[in-house]
Amino acid sequence: MPTQFDPPSGTRDFLAADWELREHAFARIRSVFGRYGFEPLVTPAFERLDVLLGKYGDDGDKLIFKILRRGEHEGTGEADLALRYDHTVPLARVAAAYGSQLPTPYKRYAIGPVWRADRPGHGRYREFLQCDLDTLGTASALADAEVICAVHDVLDELGLRGFRFLLNSRRVLAGLLEAFGVPAELGPGVLITLDKLDKLAPGEVIAELAGRGLAEDQAAPLVGALTAGDAAEQIRDALKSSDEGAAGLDEVDSLLSLVTGQVPGDRVTFSPRLVRGLSYYTGPIWEVAAEGGAGSLAGGGRYDHLIEQLGGPDERHAARSFGFAAAARDAGLRASVYLGSSGKLGRQLKWANDAGARWAVIYGNAEEEAGTVTVRDMTTGEQAAVPLSGLAGHFADLAV
Amino acid sequence: MPTQFDPPSGTRDFLAADWELREHAFARIRSVFGRYGFEPLVTPAFERLDVLLGKYGDDGDKLIFKILRRGEHEGTGEADLALRYDHTVPLARVAAAYGSQLPTPYKRYAIGPVWRADRPGHGRYREFLQCDLDTLGTASALADAEVICAVHDVLDELGLRGFRFLLNSRRVLAGLLEAFGVPAELGPGVLITLDKLDKLAPGEVIAELAGRGLAEDQAAPLVGALTAGDAAEQIRDALKSSDEGAAGLDEVDSLLSLVTGQVPGDRVTFSPRLVRGLSYYTGPIWEVAAEGGAGSLAGGGRYDHLIEQLGGPDERHAARSFGFAAAARDAGLRASVYLGSSGKLGRQLKWANDAGARWAVIYGNAEEEAGTVTVRDMTTGEQAAVPLSGLAGHFADLAV
Repeated sequence: MPTQFDPPSGTRDFLAADWELREHAFARIRSVFGRYGFEPLVTPAFERLDVLLGKYGDDGDKLIFKILRRGEHEGTGEADLALRYDHTVPLARVAAAYGSQLPTPYKRYAIGPVWRADRPGHGRYREFLQCDLDTLGTASALADAEVICAVHDVLDELGLRGFRFLLNSRRVLAGLLEAFGVPAELGPGVLITLDKLDKLAPGEVIAELAGRGLAEDQAAPLVGALTAGDAAEQIRDALKSSDEGAAGLDEVDSLLSLVTGQVPGDRVTFSPRLVRGLSYYTGPIWEVAAEGGAGSLAGGGRYDHLIEQLGGPDERHAARSFGFAAAARDAGLRASVYLGSSGKLGRQLKWANDAGARWAVIYGNAEEEAGTVTVRDMTTGEQAAVPLSGLAGHFADLAV
Repeated sequence: MPTQFDPPSGTRDFLAADWELREHAFARIRSVFGRYGFEPLVTPAFERLDVLLGKYGDDGDKLIFKILRRGEHEGTGEADLALRYDHTVPLARVAAAYGSQLPTPYKRYAIGPVWRADRPGHGRYREFLQCDLDTLGTASALADAEVICAVHDVLDELGLRGFRFLLNSRRVLAGLLEAFGVPAELGPGVLITLDKLDKLAPGEVIAELAGRGLAEDQAAPLVGALTAGDAAEQIRDALKSSDEGAAGLDEVDSLLSLVTGQVPGDRVTFSPRLVRGLSYYTGPIWEVAAEGGAGSLAGGGRYDHLIEQLGGPDERHAARSFGFAAAARDAGLRASVYLGSSGKLGRQLKWANDAGARWAVIYGNAEEEAGTVTVRDMTTGEQAAVPLSGLAGHFADLAV
C-alpha cells in the first residue's frame, strides 16, 4: 500500500546503497561511450511543448508530462512546457540550435532521467534513466553499426549474459506490407498490432488485424510467415517482390556484416517482426532482448528526418549536397554547401545570394521523389528540374 | 535574441566542455561531503503538489512549476504534481516515509537540478543545480557547525577566495522585532523588506516599511541600527531586552565558536540583517557572500518543524522525549520512546497500547507552549497536565 509519503506513483527514491550501485554502472557506461568517441550532452529537464509534440506518435504524445503555464496564465489550464520524453528529440533541437558549431559527425551520449506518464508496474516507471547514444551528420551504416557495438560492449562490461540483438529495418516492414498486399492506409495500424506478436497468440493478432479492416485471408499468411519457425527465411523470400523491402533487407544484412567480429554471431539476429514504437525511425531499427523474454534492455534505430522536422538540415539530403558540390567543382565551377542550421529554403537562398552565387542547387523531399535536382538562376529566379543522371552535363553547360 | 531552437527560457544546454568542468566540480563536492560522513540520496524530479505547497512561503509557492493532470483529467487544467523546488522538502518527505529505516542522525547530501519559475537573468536560472547537505535527527548545534565546515571546505577546494560566511538566527530576528517594538502582525512583512537592505538605500527601505504600516519613528532606528558601521554591536546591545533575541544570539555565538579553527576568523561573521527567504527556518541561518557582493554562493539554516509538518516526528520534541523516558527510568519505571515515522497521535497511542503501556507521555506544540507534559492513563483514558518541573515527582508517584 502506498502511503502519502511515498514518492509519486512510478517514481523511486534512491538511498545510499542503491545510489552506489547505479553510479558504479553509469561510470562504466560513460567510460565505454567515451572510448567509442562519443561526447556528453546535458539538456534541460523540460522543453517547449511544441518541440516534443508530434515526434513520438499519438500514443507517445499522450504520455508526455505537461507543465502548466505560470502566473496570470495558470488559470487558463494550458501547458507551454513538457518534461523530456527521451534524449533524442532534445538532441535534434540542439542540432538545430547549434548547427555547424557542433563537430561533424556529432557523436554524443546523454545519461539522465526521462519521464513518461505510463501506467506504472511490471518494471515500468514514470521516471527512469536513459543512457542514450546518437550520431548525427552521417548517412553511413557505419554509424548504426558503431552504436550497436558500443551498446554491446556496455552490456558485456556490466556482466549481462544471454541477451540478443534483434535487427530489422522500417523499410523491411514497409516492404512486408507491400509484399502481403496490405493497403497503404492500413499500414501504420497493422504495424502497431504486429508489434504485439510477443504478447498475443497469432489468432488474437489476426483478429485484431481484422478489426483494423485487414481481411483474414491477408492477415493469416502475414502472421503465419512472421511466426513460423523459419520466419526470417520466409520473410526474406517474400521481400524479393518489393523494391523497398529488398533495400531494407540490404540495410539489415550490411549491418549484420559490419557488427560481426565485434558482436558474437549468437548475439545478433534478423528479426522481421521487430517494429519499435517511436514514429521517427526511418531505416534500420534494433532492440536488445533480455534472456528469457524479460523485456528489452536497449533499443534504437536510424531517424533521418527528425532534425529536419525541428528546423535543422536533413542529414540524408545534406550528405547528397556534398556530392552535388563535388560534381559542380568537377565541371570547373566554384561551389559551397550551406552549413548553417536553418532548414528554411528562403534562409538558405538568402545565404546563397549574400555569397554572390550565380546558381543555387536545391534538393529536398520533392526532388528526391522525382529523381531530380532543382537548379535556380539567382539572377532571374528561373528554376529548372534537372534529372540526377544529367546533372554533370548540366553543370558542364553552365561552366561554359 | 533567443531562437525557436534555444533551450526554454532560463535553462541551458551543456555541451562537452562545459559538462567536463561541471562534473569535475561535482566530483570534488561529492568527495568533501563523503569525507564528512554524509551519504547520497536521489529523489524524483517531481513530488505530489501538496507535498511542496506551503513550505516556501507565498512567494515561493508562486515559483513552483506545476504538472498538468493527465488523460481524461487533462481538460480540468489542474495540477497534481510539481517539479522539486529544492532538495530539502523532498528530504523531509523521505524522512517521513522511511523513518526509523534511516540512520540516526541521518546525514545526507543531494546533488541535482531544482526548478523555479523565477524571472531569468542576472545569473538566475529556472533550472539550476543545487548541492544540498542536511542532518536530520539531532538538535545539536554541532550539526549546524558541521554543515558550515563542509561547505567551507567545498568552496576552499574549488579554489574560491574572498568569500564570507554570514551567520544569524531566526530567533535573533524575532528578538530584533521585539526589541524595536514592531507589532507582531507586521513581523513577517517587515523581515521581507529588511531583506532588501543589500539592494535598496536605507531611506527606500524605511519608506517600504511605512507602506507596510510600520511608523517611521519605529522603522528609522531599526534600519539605522542594522546599517550602522558597528551594526553587530548595536544589535547585540538591543537584543538584551528580548529573551528570544538573547537566546538567538547564544545560538549564533555558539556556532561561531564551534566553526572557529575549521573556518578562518576572517571568513565568518555575525550578520544581524541576514533574513533568508524560505519560511521553514527556525533557528540559526547562514549565507556565503561572494567576493565584492556578487550574490550568495550558498546558504542554509535549521528547520525544526518541516518534517513534523510532513507527518514525521518533530525533531526537537523527539529529542525531549528521550529525556522524559530517562526520567521515567530513573523513577524505576520501564519506558520506551516511539521510534516510528508517524506524526499522528492516534497511531502513536495505538503503538503504546499494543506494547502494553500503562501510561503514555505526550509532548507536542501545545504542551511546549504550556510548559507541561500530558500523562495519559492507558486504561481509563484520563489525561493529566503535569508541569515539566514536577515530572520526576509524578513518575515517582506512578512507580509506587
